[in-house]
Amino acid sequence: MQTRIEHDTMGEVEVPSEAMWGAQTQRSLQNFKIGAERLPRPMIRAMGLVKKAAALTNAELNQIPQDLAQYIVGAAEEVMAGQWDSQFPLVVWQTGSGTQSNMNCNEVIANIANQKLGNPLGSQKPVHPNDHVNRAQSTNDSFPTAIHVAASLQINELLIPAVTQLRNTLQAKSEEFADIVKIGRTHLQDATPLTLGQEFSGYVSQLDHGLKRLHQALEGLYELPLGGTAVGTGLNAHPDYAVKAAEQLASLTGLAFVTAPNKFEALAGRDAAVFASGALKTLAASLNKIANDVRWLASGPRCGFGELRIPENEPGSSIMPGKVNPTQSEAMTMVVAQVMGNDTTINIAGASGNFELNVFMPVIAFNLLQSIQLLGDACNSFNDHCAVGIEPNREKIDHFLHDSLMLVTALNPVIGYENAAKVAKAAYKEGKTLKQVAVELGLVTEQQFDEVVRPEQMVSPNTQ
Amino acid sequence: MQTRIEHDTMGEVEVPSEAMWGAQTQRSLQNFKIGAERLPRPMIRAMGLVKKAAALTNAELNQIPQDLAQYIVGAAEEVMAGQWDSQFPLVVWQTGSGTQSNMNCNEVIANIANQKLGNPLGSQKPVHPNDHVNRAQSTNDSFPTAIHVAASLQINELLIPAVTQLRNTLQAKSEEFADIVKIGRTHLQDATPLTLGQEFSGYVSQLDHGLKRLHQALEGLYELPLGGTAVGTGLNAHPDYAVKAAEQLASLTGLAFVTAPNKFEALAGRDAAVFASGALKTLAASLNKIANDVRWLASGPRCGFGELRIPENEPGSSIMPGKVNPTQSEAMTMVVAQVMGNDTTINIAGASGNFELNVFMPVIAFNLLQSIQLLGDACNSFNDHCAVGIEPNREKIDHFLHDSLMLVTALNPVIGYENAAKVAKAAYKEGKTLKQVAVELGLVTEQQFDEVVRPEQMVSPNTQ
Amino acid sequence: MQTRIEHDTMGEVEVPSEAMWGAQTQRSLQNFKIGAERLPRPMIRAMGLVKKAAALTNAELNQIPQDLAQYIVGAAEEVMAGQWDSQFPLVVWQTGSGTQSNMNCNEVIANIANQKLGNPLGSQKPVHPNDHVNRAQSTNDSFPTAIHVAASLQINELLIPAVTQLRNTLQAKSEEFADIVKIGRTHLQDATPLTLGQEFSGYVSQLDHGLKRLHQALEGLYELPLGGTAVGTGLNAHPDYAVKAAEQLASLTGLAFVTAPNKFEALAGRDAAVFASGALKTLAASLNKIANDVRWLASGPRCGFGELRIPENEPGSSIMPGKVNPTQSEAMTMVVAQVMGNDTTINIAGASGNFELNVFMPVIAFNLLQSIQLLGDACNSFNDHCAVGIEPNREKIDHFLHDSLMLVTALNPVIGYENAAKVAKAAYKEGKTLKQVAVELGLVTEQQFDEVVRPEQMVSPNTQ
Amino acid sequence: MQTRIEHDTMGEVEVPSEAMWGAQTQRSLQNFKIGAERLPRPMIRAMGLVKKAAALTNAELNQIPQDLAQYIVGAAEEVMAGQWDSQFPLVVWQTGSGTQSNMNCNEVIANIANQKLGNPLGSQKPVHPNDHVNRAQSTNDSFPTAIHVAASLQINELLIPAVTQLRNTLQAKSEEFADIVKIGRTHLQDATPLTLGQEFSGYVSQLDHGLKRLHQALEGLYELPLGGTAVGTGLNAHPDYAVKAAEQLASLTGLAFVTAPNKFEALAGRDAAVFASGALKTLAASLNKIANDVRWLASGPRCGFGELRIPENEPGSSIMPGKVNPTQSEAMTMVVAQVMGNDTTINIAGASGNFELNVFMPVIAFNLLQSIQLLGDACNSFNDHCAVGIEPNREKIDHFLHDSLMLVTALNPVIGYENAAKVAKAAYKEGKTLKQVAVELGLVTEQQFDEVVRPEQMVSPNTQ
Repeated sequence: MQTRIEHDTMGEVEVPSEAMWGAQTQRSLQNFKIGAERLPRPMIRAMGLVKKAAALTNAELNQIPQDLAQYIVGAAEEVMAGQWDSQFPLVVWQTGSGTQSNMNCNEVIANIANQKLGNPLGSQKPVHPNDHVNRAQSTNDSFPTAIHVAASLQINELLIPAVTQLRNTLQAKSEEFADIVKIGRTHLQDATPLTLGQEFSGYVSQLDHGLKRLHQALEGLYELPLGGTAVGTGLNAHPDYAVKAAEQLASLTGLAFVTAPNKFEALAGRDAAVFASGALKTLAASLNKIANDVRWLASGPRCGFGELRIPENEPGSSIMPGKVNPTQSEAMTMVVAQVMGNDTTINIAGASGNFELNVFMPVIAFNLLQSIQLLGDACNSFNDHCAVGIEPNREKIDHFLHDSLMLVTALNPVIGYENAAKVAKAAYKEGKTLKQVAVELGLVTEQQFDEVVRPEQMVSPNTQ
Repeated sequence: MQTRIEHDTMGEVEVPSEAMWGAQTQRSLQNFKIGAERLPRPMIRAMGLVKKAAALTNAELNQIPQDLAQYIVGAAEEVMAGQWDSQFPLVVWQTGSGTQSNMNCNEVIANIANQKLGNPLGSQKPVHPNDHVNRAQSTNDSFPTAIHVAASLQINELLIPAVTQLRNTLQAKSEEFADIVKIGRTHLQDATPLTLGQEFSGYVSQLDHGLKRLHQALEGLYELPLGGTAVGTGLNAHPDYAVKAAEQLASLTGLAFVTAPNKFEALAGRDAAVFASGALKTLAASLNKIANDVRWLASGPRCGFGELRIPENEPGSSIMPGKVNPTQSEAMTMVVAQVMGNDTTINIAGASGNFELNVFMPVIAFNLLQSIQLLGDACNSFNDHCAVGIEPNREKIDHFLHDSLMLVTALNPVIGYENAAKVAKAAYKEGKTLKQVAVELGLVTEQQFDEVVRPEQMVSPNTQ
Repeated sequence: MQTRIEHDTMGEVEVPSEAMWGAQTQRSLQNFKIGAERLPRPMIRAMGLVKKAAALTNAELNQIPQDLAQYIVGAAEEVMAGQWDSQFPLVVWQTGSGTQSNMNCNEVIANIANQKLGNPLGSQKPVHPNDHVNRAQSTNDSFPTAIHVAASLQINELLIPAVTQLRNTLQAKSEEFADIVKIGRTHLQDATPLTLGQEFSGYVSQLDHGLKRLHQALEGLYELPLGGTAVGTGLNAHPDYAVKAAEQLASLTGLAFVTAPNKFEALAGRDAAVFASGALKTLAASLNKIANDVRWLASGPRCGFGELRIPENEPGSSIMPGKVNPTQSEAMTMVVAQVMGNDTTINIAGASGNFELNVFMPVIAFNLLQSIQLLGDACNSFNDHCAVGIEPNREKIDHFLHDSLMLVTALNPVIGYENAAKVAKAAYKEGKTLKQVAVELGLVTEQQFDEVVRPEQMVSPNTQ
Repeated sequence: MQTRIEHDTMGEVEVPSEAMWGAQTQRSLQNFKIGAERLPRPMIRAMGLVKKAAALTNAELNQIPQDLAQYIVGAAEEVMAGQWDSQFPLVVWQTGSGTQSNMNCNEVIANIANQKLGNPLGSQKPVHPNDHVNRAQSTNDSFPTAIHVAASLQINELLIPAVTQLRNTLQAKSEEFADIVKIGRTHLQDATPLTLGQEFSGYVSQLDHGLKRLHQALEGLYELPLGGTAVGTGLNAHPDYAVKAAEQLASLTGLAFVTAPNKFEALAGRDAAVFASGALKTLAASLNKIANDVRWLASGPRCGFGELRIPENEPGSSIMPGKVNPTQSEAMTMVVAQVMGNDTTINIAGASGNFELNVFMPVIAFNLLQSIQLLGDACNSFNDHCAVGIEPNREKIDHFLHDSLMLVTALNPVIGYENAAKVAKAAYKEGKTLKQVAVELGLVTEQQFDEVVRPEQMVSPNTQ
């Protein structure tokens, strides 16, 4: 491999000739051969955004020359767009502040800019990675800012639309199924009836609440550490920098970013991420309920509940023809397990700051963004390949409804609780229908039974 | 032990003669000899509140006689006040719906009322535990309502005041320490300075955000399942019951309770509890940072950081005289570990509903209320026995500040980054002060050094 | 309340006149008003055991007078037996080393002994809580020793017998059900058959492995920190003390306790507890599978799987006569959720030692012992109130078996995979039996079908 | 993109012309656009191993022709070697049984073999992906077998050597530092002394125990599900297949693989993975202690503990010259947080099997293998870039040792505990040394003090 020599304060480093990164990135590559988990795309995009906003703000405040700022902005936009992702080779398991990824970004942007200006890679001029690209920043404020920006964008652009789409599909199903009366189940045991539409309305309501919680979590993520620099004091930043840089980010993204009211917390705590993960795991709990209900209700086809039919997306077993598995539910519930584990990781990491800095930032970024991505993608997949195609198996639903013993509840006012209980128990013991037994015992006529035992009357509030 | 015979639909049960509970409680005692963890006091109080609100609402809607309602209300108030806690002997590890604890409450209230009316225990008249006390309710809606009510009351009455008090103490300290310049530390390594007041302001901000998150979590807890009855349809409840019962609970507690917009979710999901636990674990993460910073800054007294002095509350080791340990921080961080584990439990339990009901309710109640109690008590204890007595060790703070090499940063504009680095490295290598080295190298005079290297100038935004 | 005055190195403390504890316990009561969770009974017993073993060893090594040792042993035995539990009022949320509970134990034992010798409470003579009861110990080695002893005893005396009993019950069921052929289910979908006995044999095997894992975990718990004293060096202990005290504990309990090979780890790490919790959570995962299978297979009675009948232990819903809920499964799965949360707590606590000591010991003890207790009790309860009474619903099992489409697999060798698939799909579509369709399509005769499609031939390895 | 048409039982699928995979893989790609987390390399290697072992066994048992078996073996070896990793494009978030990845492997191996035999991609002959490559297998037994094989290989080949190397480095340091007496610290507070070598010996012992636990966990992983086929009965497999296939895998890997004693558990439970994760999280807890101790002891350089010097691997802050951060500790502790979160995920997934199958297998594989990889890599990185270069800062160690007040303990036998306490408190209050105060108070002479207060005498068991 061809290399070039770069210098930093610790001496010389050999960097691949064509690499857009520089000495500090290269040192990290050599010192941290741990796993293969790189910082994800949304994080690279967000770092680009932060560099762009910083350059614009520094230029406005006359901290860097206008022309250099324009080159930085141009390079940052290419980074944001994903053109240089291959030049971000560092793994999550590096410095806990993300310093090396921040330097990676500074080095790449400087090299892009300098190359356009006709200078060789590694020349560090006219655009210097530290003095210009990282101007008025420390990793300690810019990296957590990038975490907030990345998570906010992903929640707004991916997760909220995905949850909303699934919610809308389920809402349409709820309306479509509004008149299908079915047996209810509590403790997995037969209970009084409800409509299939009502059952689905519960899922819709869970997702509605989940969306609200995402918005609540976003409020904390919108507060940006940028401007705190190394320890929160803002040393080396212009007094107006923090407010203006946050305004830039708000303007560039259309999101309600503001400068964090207290920069000491903003560097040393990652509580907004911990809370956001709390909203994500709550959404995961909701999705677990939905995906599980769907697969249990679709269990069978002959030897399970079988009340729902779900799309057949792929062949089943090679030895068992006709087998169809609820694979979208399976993917969703695996995602749920992952999100709950990620939440534990984020809790531990978020609680572990000391003094002026939390040094578990890359692992927080990695897990938070993974949870958002997986939940968003899984909602879309579950929507497209399962929810939209859910159909009721009316025959089975009817069969269970009328076979159930819990309809006996409707006889209470007519024959009394004691007699009703007698009917239910006899029916269960003898394997008969409620009607059979009730008529046999001479408690009601067939006609009376049919008039009184009407499940569709049992699906709303009333007083007998 | 003297016993009386009670009957239920499964036959006879021997109940201790003096017990205020009845057959169903007794069966649970016999069937669930698991652990010793009972439902906590706030849950008993909340069940009493629910029974009171239900009785008042049922009376208003003419579902039960006014006079019986008054007796139920009176009995429920005694339960709320804690007069009958010994009559709630059931453990958490019972039916997952909490049915047996709900029946326990119904039985105790009926017996209290009937006893006042001159009837023997177990008579079930004139006040019947099911027909009157449990009127228009199912465990499936009243038990989760009690969870929401209990958690809301404990958050409002215990936790928010405790966090607020600690926040105010730390705010006062922050103001008191506003002028004490000290060395900053990132990565546990010496960094640029800040004031001790700034450091404490970060803690205040964390708690301010924590309080906001508690209020966000309360919004979900304020939505009450009551009125959904067995499966969410409201079967056996008056159509106006749900709204009015929630209004009663709001009126009785002064909290913004409303009826849940969707009762199917309200019975089958416990997402509001999962999210509330998410707010609690985030608060725990904040408190972990604070308690850890305090004990590390107070470490020593001779061989640690030693920048803070904390109250000496108890003798140290019996063999090491003068040893004082940061025991309040230790209690706090153990509470944090517990709250994070409780969060895992709540996540698993909350995600595990099926069809029309979540049957992990007692374990959710137990963990959620324990987390609230422990965080509230620990904040009060940490406040009273540690935070109020925190004092700076100014000598040590000054020593570190002036011994630190990171002040060299201030020389950058005068002698250049390269020379500044040379000074810092030589000082470290030779064990000298920055001033010594800088003067020795002829880079500045002593006077110049003292003019330029002024830590108090380094604690706010600026541009050199 | 009447009080007496006690002294410690920080001055005077008012202690209730009748309290067997002394100044240090009293200070803890005042300084740690956090929650209500006391150290559990097995921990008090284990602290008594440690004090007894220490006294016997110190006497043998001539470190304390023989007669005093005998009084300490006598008092410790009363503590072990539970006679003085009310005198251990301290909560978990105290000093992270458990110092105050260790002193509590020292004070109580000294007072018991001195009282027998005719001296007043608080006299500290002739038996001194520190000089004699705590002789050659520090909390830092005796408290973690008590954790290991308590957990080992509870695992051996409670948990292993409980798991073994449940395993034996399931083994008996497995044998009893050996000939009942039933439909298999994978992905919740109908699959090829197996016997009910085979299904239960999987549960037995899970518990067999669980028992093995408990024994593996015990190996680490059997290594005792005692003898490390304050920082692991053994300062103030006789050189033979560590080995002999461990031998005493082995002799007193019949368990294979040995002195830990490295006392620095033994004080600063709690890894054996972390690993033991790992074995407990694995057992919990097994029990979750078993309890869930049982309740799903017993779901119904009409509208679920209904292949098993489980004991009816308590009446179901007051409005739904005949409703029986799988409450033992519910208690078990709630215990599982708790154990998994406790595991998270123990992980965080166990990972948080610094330098010469881990100061998360009370919370580790509390969670570890709770997990053991709950799993043991839940196994006993599930065994007695559910497993022993499990019965197959042969009618339902047969119905599903013969209704299933997956038996078509058996036709593969006769009519080919393509035709078999055709039969299965037509049967599903038209709601017919496999036999009906196969005969209608002229692929086999009724007689042929009956000869070939024999589920009982499909439950063991073979090659068609 | 050029495509070819493939068929499966659900119809036609367009597959990229050059793809080695077939219809089922292609369907999965289309149906599961969730995240980017593919099954990792060790899993692909293990699937190749399973296919090789199955082919050899089937050939031996005359279930497939010898010549086809040889082609399958050859293709499988290329898969094992990593030559076809790009042909395994499926993500973790697919069918919970891993069916689609198993089919992916079958398709790729068949295509490699058929291509060598001169047939086009997709021809499925002479080697058929199902009939030959998947012969006597179901995903339900072969995929969990691959998990066990992959985890066993990674633990043996990566993790155990990495932990052993770190253990050996620390052991060498422990010996090197055997004579360096330093102050001990408990509760973060100064305590009695020990040697730096003793401190490091605790780390060694933690890792020794960790290695033992890995071996304990391997015992369960060595039991292989292969031969259970679809539901555990072994339907469609030769009666000798299970035992012989496990022997093949043992022979091919050199590991002690055996056939699982119960195949119903082996398919439906993933307890061995849950327990293995328990061993990994315990190792993580140990490594957290070690990495934290190292960074705290190296904190400073001026304003922290500063007793250790660690390698300077990369430049510190761009504004703070000379700043060196404990980045290897940071990477390690982030890995620890990840492993603990992965453990939560595995717990949830492992507990969630139903009936004859656990359908959380890909997420278990993903997390288990990630934990092993990260711990192994992090141990190597921490060893190479930190542990080997740890040096004591003897000056600082000596300074703290002699400045500490806890040495006063040594005066107890000479001047009594009361006087010793007086000396310690006065020294702390007045900022003097113990010797100064003791001499000033006339309790000892300088000479006496120097004779008695000898820290090097305090680092082993004794009785004063």
